Amino acid sequence: MSGPDPEALATAILDDPGTVRGRAAMSRAITLMESTRTDHRVAARKLYALLSPHAGGAVRVGISGAPGAGKSTLIESLGCTLTAAGHRVGVLAVDPSSSRTGGSVLGDKTRMPRLSGEPNAYIRPSPNAGTLGGVARATAQAITVLEAAGFDVVIVETVGVGQSETTVAAMVDTFLLLTLSRTGDQLQGIKKGVIELADVIAVNKSDGEHLIEAGATARELGGAVRLVRGRDGWVPPVLTCSGMTGAGLPELWVAVSAHRDDLGSVGLAAKRAAQQIDLTWALVRDELDQRLRRSAGISAIRDTITASVGDGRLSAAAAADQLLAAYDAQ
Amino acid sequence: MSGPDPEALATAILDDPGTVRGRAAMSRAITLMESTRTDHRVAARKLYALLSPHAGGAVRVGISGAPGAGKSTLIESLGCTLTAAGHRVGVLAVDPSSSRTGGSVLGDKTRMPRLSGEPNAYIRPSPNAGTLGGVARATAQAITVLEAAGFDVVIVETVGVGQSETTVAAMVDTFLLLTLSRTGDQLQGIKKGVIELADVIAVNKSDGEHLIEAGATARELGGAVRLVRGRDGWVPPVLTCSGMTGAGLPELWVAVSAHRDDLGSVGLAAKRAAQQIDLTWALVRDELDQRLRRSAGISAIRDTITASVGDGRLSAAAAADQLLAAYDAQ
Repeated sequence: MSGPDPEALATAILDDPGTVRGRAAMSRAITLMESTRTDHRVAARKLYALLSPHAGGAVRVGISGAPGAGKSTLIESLGCTLTAAGHRVGVLAVDPSSSRTGGSVLGDKTRMPRLSGEPNAYIRPSPNAGTLGGVARATAQAITVLEAAGFDVVIVETVGVGQSETTVAAMVDTFLLLTLSRTGDQLQGIKKGVIELADVIAVNKSDGEHLIEAGATARELGGAVRLVRGRDGWVPPVLTCSGMTGAGLPELWVAVSAHRDDLGSVGLAAKRAAQQIDLTWALVRDELDQRLRRSAGISAIRDTITASVGDGRLSAAAAADQLLAAYDAQ
Repeated sequence: MSGPDPEALATAILDDPGTVRGRAAMSRAITLMESTRTDHRVAARKLYALLSPHAGGAVRVGISGAPGAGKSTLIESLGCTLTAAGHRVGVLAVDPSSSRTGGSVLGDKTRMPRLSGEPNAYIRPSPNAGTLGGVARATAQAITVLEAAGFDVVIVETVGVGQSETTVAAMVDTFLLLTLSRTGDQLQGIKKGVIELADVIAVNKSDGEHLIEAGATARELGGAVRLVRGRDGWVPPVLTCSGMTGAGLPELWVAVSAHRDDLGSVGLAAKRAAQQIDLTWALVRDELDQRLRRSAGISAIRDTITASVGDGRLSAAAAADQLLAAYDAQ
């Protein structure tokens, strides 16, 4: 991409959102915002300023679940239900592993063949910008592009890897956790901490032979959620659904809407403002963290220092002082 | 404190641990390690090098719970039980709020009058070094001092404020969460995320009229813990106890020992080495974070920038770039 023109992109996105030209402009705008080139950042900043007055109008939903929880089938079903009801649905992915694996989330549009073919849907794979901070930066801006183009539902998909769920929860209005029926004494696909991020929980693949088991899991999980989350105002409902048959999807959307209603318009505005400010500082810290990782001074002593700390010869405090001295000496 | 002599302190700590002289040396050593003065840091590093070969011998237990959960009464009872059985017990506090409140944890030794009078116990309030990073740095080194002085049980107490529980969990072998009986549909004193840090959970104040309720709470909480933590090898046991009557305290200590046995000596060594390395990087990041907070360049634009981000005029990405530019321009 050379010489992207923010004004031309903004005009195409705002004026022709449903056309081929508008969609191409959206794709170019998101690519521009993913770029780390200095001149692209300047252009992206200008584009954001043009688009942001028209943004903010979407229901932002995060969807997370372990591999195999049925995220893509559910998003495809839910997305088609929503476009059929007149909504315009954008799907973004946050996958910090995509640069390594070549994209385990939405790397392949054929994972959602029906939704890909919908004129009122737009699917965008995760950017390949290595760090989670880079992905978060790009995704937050892609939400603005989609909203400016008139998409009224934005779904952000993520896999349960590292901090990705926390990152996604911090950029959506409602965070939906997808899980499966319990097997034996444990709940498959529930990772530490995620249950406490969720606003809505759905036990997926509630169909065929799993129907009864899914209901039992939802009841049991509902009890656990009430215990763990009891102090909060909002108690996440635990539903059952099937991405394959479509059962429970209307109820799922009702639950998402109920969570938003519970926030209220003032609460939602406050939540989003706080999210953007948090994201700002997270990006600043992420950049400082990257500098630390790239520091030649630290690279030179890192292995020796961590070995000495690991076997107790050096205190963590003294090691930190030495690492900082090496970092500053550059 | 002027001109602390690391060698003299180390000798007193290692040779006269039970004497008044040894205890005074311990206190001076911990104060030295809390200091942020450059010359003190050099002396502290030397002292650590002298003490660390003699450290590592204690059972390190973290105890957390909301205000009112009965932490001090329980620690006093447990501590006296342990000293009566021949143990030497050190108690440290991590309280990031202490510099503001004047010490809400262990600020007053009269909270534990019986244990304070025990010759084989040593109680140290939380350092007043403002940041959690500073407190973590000082506490990790205080553990080394206590261990070098022959204390074989170190209890680190914390209140459930901010990240303090995560910090304490990252510096002990076993993390014990203290809670109270449930009231209505919620568990009092359980904060988000803490249930997933706990290695052992105890429902305290299981005495008198609360006896039956405490048992019911423990069973219910045990079910929730198995669901939330099902994937881990170690499932935290949920017990009942009473710091006031002493009931359940031997069983609590058995549970702590069982958790340590489950780790095994190889697992324990690996856990401690990983903790120290994590702490090192946490201290480095904490220092970078402090520099960010102290940055005059950032202070000058911080309010304007966050206001623009909050009302959507500026993207988080662009705001982060501007903050970093202001930080670097100094």
